[in-house]
Amino acid sequence: MSENRDGANGTVDSHGQSTRISNGTLRLGMIGLGLAGAGMLPAVFEDSRFKLTAVADPNPLLRERFAKDHDCRVFDSAEALMEGDCVDAVYIATPHQLHCEHVVLAATHGVHAVVEKPMALTLEDCDRMRDAVDRAGTVLIVGHTHSFDPAVLAIRDIIRSGSVGRLAIISMINYTDFLYRPRRPEELDTSKGGGILFNQIPHQVDTIRLLAGSDVTSVRAASHVLDPARPTEGCCTAFLEFSDGTAATLTYSGYDHFDSDEFHEWVGENGQPKKPSHGSTRQKLGVFSSSREEAEARTTRLGYGGRPMNPATDEKWFQPHFGTLIVTCEHADIRQTKDGIRVYRNDGSEEVIIPCASTRPGRSKVLDELYDAVVHGIAPVHNGVFGRGTLEACLAILESSRSHAEVRLGNGLGEQA
Amino acid sequence: MSENRDGANGTVDSHGQSTRISNGTLRLGMIGLGLAGAGMLPAVFEDSRFKLTAVADPNPLLRERFAKDHDCRVFDSAEALMEGDCVDAVYIATPHQLHCEHVVLAATHGVHAVVEKPMALTLEDCDRMRDAVDRAGTVLIVGHTHSFDPAVLAIRDIIRSGSVGRLAIISMINYTDFLYRPRRPEELDTSKGGGILFNQIPHQVDTIRLLAGSDVTSVRAASHVLDPARPTEGCCTAFLEFSDGTAATLTYSGYDHFDSDEFHEWVGENGQPKKPSHGSTRQKLGVFSSSREEAEARTTRLGYGGRPMNPATDEKWFQPHFGTLIVTCEHADIRQTKDGIRVYRNDGSEEVIIPCASTRPGRSKVLDELYDAVVHGIAPVHNGVFGRGTLEACLAILESSRSHAEVRLGNGLGEQA
Ligand SMILES: NC(=O)c1ccc[n+]([C@@H]2O[C@H](COP(=O)([O-])OP(=O)(O)OC[C@H]3O[C@@H](n4cnc5c(N)ncnc54)[C@H](O)[C@@H]3O)[C@@H](O)[C@H]2O)c1
Ligand SMILES: NC(=O)c1ccc[n+]([C@@H]2O[C@H](COP(=O)([O-])OP(=O)(O)OC[C@H]3O[C@@H](n4cnc5c(N)ncnc54)[C@H](O)[C@@H]3O)[C@@H](O)[C@H]2O)c1
Repeated sequence: MSENRDGANGTVDSHGQSTRISNGTLRLGMIGLGLAGAGMLPAVFEDSRFKLTAVADPNPLLRERFAKDHDCRVFDSAEALMEGDCVDAVYIATPHQLHCEHVVLAATHGVHAVVEKPMALTLEDCDRMRDAVDRAGTVLIVGHTHSFDPAVLAIRDIIRSGSVGRLAIISMINYTDFLYRPRRPEELDTSKGGGILFNQIPHQVDTIRLLAGSDVTSVRAASHVLDPARPTEGCCTAFLEFSDGTAATLTYSGYDHFDSDEFHEWVGENGQPKKPSHGSTRQKLGVFSSSREEAEARTTRLGYGGRPMNPATDEKWFQPHFGTLIVTCEHADIRQTKDGIRVYRNDGSEEVIIPCASTRPGRSKVLDELYDAVVHGIAPVHNGVFGRGTLEACLAILESSRSHAEVRLGNGLGEQA
Repeated sequence: MSENRDGANGTVDSHGQSTRISNGTLRLGMIGLGLAGAGMLPAVFEDSRFKLTAVADPNPLLRERFAKDHDCRVFDSAEALMEGDCVDAVYIATPHQLHCEHVVLAATHGVHAVVEKPMALTLEDCDRMRDAVDRAGTVLIVGHTHSFDPAVLAIRDIIRSGSVGRLAIISMINYTDFLYRPRRPEELDTSKGGGILFNQIPHQVDTIRLLAGSDVTSVRAASHVLDPARPTEGCCTAFLEFSDGTAATLTYSGYDHFDSDEFHEWVGENGQPKKPSHGSTRQKLGVFSSSREEAEARTTRLGYGGRPMNPATDEKWFQPHFGTLIVTCEHADIRQTKDGIRVYRNDGSEEVIIPCASTRPGRSKVLDELYDAVVHGIAPVHNGVFGRGTLEACLAILESSRSHAEVRLGNGLGEQA
């Protein structure tokens, strides 16, 4: 194993940088053991191309829980992990406002990075991140979002194959309990990256952009704050048009009323079988007497070790999804189903079953993209330009909601119509 | 029975006009025995407040079929029917381009009218129609659309009751076989009112406007012609914003690929149980060797007597619908279901079953509105102003699709943002 910074024992990738690989295995560090980090770990553990060599989190409870389960270096900060010099790549699952700092930190150490969505909270930060990785010649991937779902990638492949003709319309709707999951105060403050626009809409925008494959040119949207006790956007509907004329509309509500998994044969976002429980997330939230208590519960319940992150072995899981996704092409509609996709062609419909090779199929695709980029020099789709584009569209959705007018994009900066 | 034009034996309604009623029964004439007229008749026959006293259609086949079944005056034109002086109100189910002429004709004869959607093809024609009925003091209702569905009216009533707080977002999606039903050539020509924008989108726009209850201020949309053999818009997605901030998105595709009745427990538009048959409408259409043959089949198959318009008595029908309709309010989401509506409140969900009092529940609501207006002087909701507003929004959808820009409405005339 090489920890040699200048790549003496490593292979050299297409960027001319050391990838510090031994036997093709990449040493991965996890920065942040909260909900996202813990949710990613099962995919890492079952992927033999990666070895988790280090984790970092300032929270002692999460570190303790993790150390009890795993034999791996544990640090109390991202900086310490980097100084530990034991990783080839890191998965950055820290709160939004730290994404820029941590990506720049990784790049500075010549370490490849996956950073959670949203890439950052401002386009300026996105540019700083891209500059840093460009200078370092490291790989940057922005994920996980549901655009990594195997079903979404399968739809993209069919569109690209040309067999269904041109893509015309994408429709996505999703109704969840998002707003009533336990939160820290800043997660309910839009100016700090709270609410659905920075946390849920990126899944839809990423998916739509991945499928459309061209640039967003126009955004018209409306979002609403419907619960003064959770004073951030909780529902939204938006129209997006692309440079090639493809159009999309997305609707999202996180108010724990209707649950659109009802349209998905009661399979949840991660592919887990679930039972109807409208309103129960709001009710559970009601037991907290203060926002401090709620923030604590967020960590203990949703962070590492807080809830089983692996499906019970006797329960069949399905494909991950993010609500209803219907794609209209010239010669077919394609829809995401619980087992894969269904293609409705001129002469009838056919379901394409996607085998569940991983317990975390969407997240394992993130690792595929990272590995392919680092080891095989394949340019990642979800790179910094892509992540920035999604943030730009999300900011345009916010701007259009506030100005009640169309926002036109094109030169990389939002401007009013 | 009074056929007295100056109302000597009739009651006088709020317009100061004779309503020529005897025993509270209104004499109704049906102008046009095509698909829409034939589809309306069952609701008329089962409604004791109305007596069908005359029909008119220039097509001898349809007149013959009708005369065989019913004892009622049969005319070969709308003019002749009017001269027959045997109706208090008419249901105008003629092709779009005749709506204006026939509404003006009815008004000139002091006859109340329901006119099929779209009200007309231009706003100028809408204004002429409104002027004529205003001068005559007759009632004008624009319908049927699916905004008359009992479930839609039930949702509106809940919103108006205030129990679910403010309305924020309406989402409608519908995927059908519309484009491959047999057509006359002009029905495939947008400039003559062909395609989904004049024929299907009005159902969604009417429904959204009825629920929103305020004025459309902004439209951003994209529509596509995906089949050169059917050279009119066949799919569309649109964003609408209202003066009170309510927003809606609608998606429609009529390309006979995905069928969204799959999300509606396989209950069809009119409430009929149906079987999955993706692509079969396109295949059936393939048997015509010419557009003339297709146009003939349109009349013989879809016109009066062409296909059973009544549910078989042993088959349970459900509520009519126009695809998926989900309404997001402050304190609840509400969704249309096959039996009525489901209200998802903070503390759980509840289904409101709407009894199927009629075999044509949506169409019987049109008759309710007509009867209430004529006999009880209750101002109809779906009046000429309402019908014009829907046409205006549909034209704005077309304009936005062509200009790839937002269309702002407000002063009654579309203008680009
Ligand atoms: N892709 C997904 O499905 C998904 C799901 C949830 C969250 N996320 C994203 O992941 C990110 C984290 O969200 P989360 O819900 O896991 O939050 P979280 O609060 O549960 O976890 C963040 C963790 O980062 C730790 N942390 C803070 N500062 C740190 C530092 N300097 N070094 C190392 N660790 C540090 C915190 O102690 C915490 O444990 C967000 O950007 C969010 O948008 C993505
Ligand atoms: N609300 C609905 O669900 C619905 C469904 C179908 C059609 N429509 C509307 O109804 C209208 C008619 O559509 P359709 O599909 O029934 O068309 P159609 O062609 O099946 O029927 C129109 C009928 O009008 C007759 N007609 C033509 N000129 C006439 C005249 N001067 N006097 C009397 N009759 C005349 C034609 O011979 C024909 O039989 C359209 O505006 C359409 O948008 C509404």
